[in-house]
Amino acid sequence: MKIVIVGGVAGGASAATRARRLSEDSHIVLFERGPNVSFANCGLPYYVGGEIADRDKLLVVSPERLRERYKLDVRIRSSVEAIDRRAKTVRVRDLASGREYDEPYDKLILAPGARAVLPDVPGIDLPGIFTLRDLSDVDRIKKLVDGGTGRAVVVGGGYIGLEMVENLVRRGIATTLVQSQDQLLSSFDKEMTTSIAAHLAAHGVEVILNNSAVSFTQADQGLEVRLRSGRVLPARLVVVGIGVRPENKLAVAAGLAVGPRGGIRVNEHLQTDDPDIYAVGDAIEVEDFVLKVPTQIPLAGPANRQGRLAANHIFGHADTRYRGTQGTAIVGIFGKTAAMTGASEKSLEHAGRAYRKVYIHSNNHAGYFPGAEVMALKVLFDPIDGKILGAQAVGGDGVDKRIDVLSMAIQAGMTVFDLEESELAYAPQYGSAKDPINMAGFVASGLIRGEHPQTEVERILDPTPGRGPFLLDVRTPEEFEQGHIPEAVNIPVDELRHRLSEIPQDCEVIAYCQVGQRGQLATRILLQTGFRASNLGGGYKTYRLFMPMSSGASESH
Amino acid sequence: MKIVIVGGVAGGASAATRARRLSEDSHIVLFERGPNVSFANCGLPYYVGGEIADRDKLLVVSPERLRERYKLDVRIRSSVEAIDRRAKTVRVRDLASGREYDEPYDKLILAPGARAVLPDVPGIDLPGIFTLRDLSDVDRIKKLVDGGTGRAVVVGGGYIGLEMVENLVRRGIATTLVQSQDQLLSSFDKEMTTSIAAHLAAHGVEVILNNSAVSFTQADQGLEVRLRSGRVLPARLVVVGIGVRPENKLAVAAGLAVGPRGGIRVNEHLQTDDPDIYAVGDAIEVEDFVLKVPTQIPLAGPANRQGRLAANHIFGHADTRYRGTQGTAIVGIFGKTAAMTGASEKSLEHAGRAYRKVYIHSNNHAGYFPGAEVMALKVLFDPIDGKILGAQAVGGDGVDKRIDVLSMAIQAGMTVFDLEESELAYAPQYGSAKDPINMAGFVASGLIRGEHPQTEVERILDPTPGRGPFLLDVRTPEEFEQGHIPEAVNIPVDELRHRLSEIPQDCEVIAYCQVGQRGQLATRILLQTGFRASNLGGGYKTYRLFMPMSSGASESH
Repeated sequence: MKIVIVGGVAGGASAATRARRLSEDSHIVLFERGPNVSFANCGLPYYVGGEIADRDKLLVVSPERLRERYKLDVRIRSSVEAIDRRAKTVRVRDLASGREYDEPYDKLILAPGARAVLPDVPGIDLPGIFTLRDLSDVDRIKKLVDGGTGRAVVVGGGYIGLEMVENLVRRGIATTLVQSQDQLLSSFDKEMTTSIAAHLAAHGVEVILNNSAVSFTQADQGLEVRLRSGRVLPARLVVVGIGVRPENKLAVAAGLAVGPRGGIRVNEHLQTDDPDIYAVGDAIEVEDFVLKVPTQIPLAGPANRQGRLAANHIFGHADTRYRGTQGTAIVGIFGKTAAMTGASEKSLEHAGRAYRKVYIHSNNHAGYFPGAEVMALKVLFDPIDGKILGAQAVGGDGVDKRIDVLSMAIQAGMTVFDLEESELAYAPQYGSAKDPINMAGFVASGLIRGEHPQTEVERILDPTPGRGPFLLDVRTPEEFEQGHIPEAVNIPVDELRHRLSEIPQDCEVIAYCQVGQRGQLATRILLQTGFRASNLGGGYKTYRLFMPMSSGASESH
Repeated sequence: MKIVIVGGVAGGASAATRARRLSEDSHIVLFERGPNVSFANCGLPYYVGGEIADRDKLLVVSPERLRERYKLDVRIRSSVEAIDRRAKTVRVRDLASGREYDEPYDKLILAPGARAVLPDVPGIDLPGIFTLRDLSDVDRIKKLVDGGTGRAVVVGGGYIGLEMVENLVRRGIATTLVQSQDQLLSSFDKEMTTSIAAHLAAHGVEVILNNSAVSFTQADQGLEVRLRSGRVLPARLVVVGIGVRPENKLAVAAGLAVGPRGGIRVNEHLQTDDPDIYAVGDAIEVEDFVLKVPTQIPLAGPANRQGRLAANHIFGHADTRYRGTQGTAIVGIFGKTAAMTGASEKSLEHAGRAYRKVYIHSNNHAGYFPGAEVMALKVLFDPIDGKILGAQAVGGDGVDKRIDVLSMAIQAGMTVFDLEESELAYAPQYGSAKDPINMAGFVASGLIRGEHPQTEVERILDPTPGRGPFLLDVRTPEEFEQGHIPEAVNIPVDELRHRLSEIPQDCEVIAYCQVGQRGQLATRILLQTGFRASNLGGGYKTYRLFMPMSSGASESH
């Protein structure tokens, strides 16, 4: 068996080593255009920032190691230019010598990855403007940073953009982040990103939303970045991270189907239209695990697993099936963590899928143990059967754990009723007897069971003129004093039973507290004493996710 | 509806507040023998150690708060002495006044907890010998420690014993740990605890296994603890944590059934033999979630959930079912973490349940990012269908996450094939593109598929006389030099293909490397070139779990 693999990073390298484990006597050729295979692309920003001090650490596996240990025919600096499907050969150009030759295959695995998108604006080719895809990018950026650069502009507020911002700031560089959308981290729901924006601001980063670069020009002191708003930002260094596009040229030229966004189409065995040609990694279209629609989700974990699965299928594991991608992703930013898995609220809305949601603001571990940090956790679920559809969390320690737990729950098709019963490890420095996961289960299950009517925060963001609902703040006077929803009346929950006469009988009542728990109790008290009441989902803390600038102005400090 | 609850800590307090949420007009009486309700019993050792500096932090909820917020009729220092099932009353003694009275109930919830077991040996009543169950215990221990005590002896190497050791050492007290079994943390498999023992030793703790206290005597300088071995340990302070026993007196006297180990018998709705009497928490017998046998697992999380479920069932959630306890538990000790969920190997053996196992030694996050720590992860699974039966992990950061992820997997009935496909959050500071969870799935699935024959470490621990298998160490010469299995021959995997002639053809070959990965590749090479070969499961690191004192003597430094 002769296997040819195009691309030697995550998916390609995994396919190659897995193929060797399954077949000692196959001839396995691994073509890589660059000088390195299997490098740590997720580590690149941290090498710029100096957290990863040793460049060699980024070289996970050397070509020599792959040759020696896995008997792979590794050919670096070799560009695959075309596929002849009839002859079952690929056309290869040796970038060092310029020599071209044909390499035959029995099975071909395409793992060409994705390339960084560049905005089509004047001056984008100027020196000092970079994307961040490989070691040569990072070497050039690091050289500039090491030489003591002035201001930097990062264009794009996704994962790589945020990681670059953090690492540039760590190097003492004044950095501005420009994002075209009205939120950072566009795969998240907007309200879950507002605290990240505030956190960046608190670390001296200027965050400019709803804007984009329309031109770059050379100036005396470096570059000038002109924004759509007309503002001009000086910069010695610009890093662009506005997304990636599948490297599909080879596939398209060979007549293989690609999706609307360019991802190579594959079946559940990761075969393209041509059963002898597989495709894996960032170049392919995958099925969204939750929504069951084609999508593109460039992630290292799925790429690695796809490479492995393609090799499995080639070597006779006929039952090998890629199950789709959940989109589990995580980013760290100045000690905070944002992570998600499964569908977002906006993707559910876009797909027309019915859902409900809960917000939990819980400590990562027992509040009585030092160092507890509150995280905001949002869980989306089916309104009828409670099946978990997606989750997002923002906070400090323990955010990764809860999202991984919910990733497993989604993978298993679990419901919010299962979360009520989840038995997670509890000692005071690790969790709580009622973990945030259980809390999400309690609240969500209660919603489905109809135990406590909930009003979503969105409903009260734009007060309708005329007489709206009666907003009842059931927190302490001290909490109320520190900030509350406009028009709200404060009656602490502990006094509520004695002060029911202060609440209008003929009016809808929306009760809220800090996170939703006292509000729920208040709602129960009101409902059982004849009021029309509901609880504001996730309480004042959730309101503040939606209204980050109001009373408290978390982005200004 | 009149609810009477006996016991005001985890299960009882949860039942009471849940009942109030479900029913605003019920009369809910909460009897607690002690002066506090709902205190943080899992935090007690950390108050002794000073990590929790403020005693008030341990008082999670005050009786006043429960009265005000939840309109509960809380009666502290009230001992429930008897149940009259026919009259549906309990006999209560007010410990302050000595007054006795009958309190009627419609539904009774027993949440009396468990009491610490004391060894039945001479001198056990002497001053200076403590158990650790409530605030009065901890106050007395802390007073002694604050006064500057000399040596301490902790009897019992379970969760509380280890936490007490850590906190006493933190206070500068020379501490000896005495454990009757041949391992610490008896719910774990022995080999998973050896590194914890070594870690304690490295922190100056003397760990004495296979021994127990046979008498305590008063001496000039405090106490003398005589061990079964004859050795005498001086101690100013002795803390005994050898287990707990269900508080079942009330139930037994009322004619309610208890299990062989004293746990109150309940059905899946948490009802005792008497449908109007529920029981929850450490006092009850539960079903082992994996083995489906009755057992006793005193844990705060399940106790809280049981309290909640009992209230649910009383208030009409007829479908409320307690699903059993997985036994998910965790302990931190000097910066290391040990955690488990589901069945252990020994509990599977004891139950006669077929299983297989894998050991994974993986970094908690990408190795190229600073601060990566190796954890040892053991996963037990069904040998046919791959269903996950249990897991244990020991290491640093991220152990809690992996055990929680596997707890979800067990709850959902997932298999090791599912672990192959798990999509966990990856950025270099949080995880790996191939997480330890995926690695466990890869290795375990490969075993079931018959891809790579594995030999368990146990087989080579006692070399049989005569010609045994050929032990092939495929690590580098440097690794081999630092320690290897006796009789092993070193051929690095990268040279193996050229040095096959050095391996005897007529002999069984067991290949091993550091963690199992190179050994697996070596095994594949050997199998595909005609040898009878297998891979040593989990490699040399797993061997060292079983043989901690050999070549390297991790307990001696």
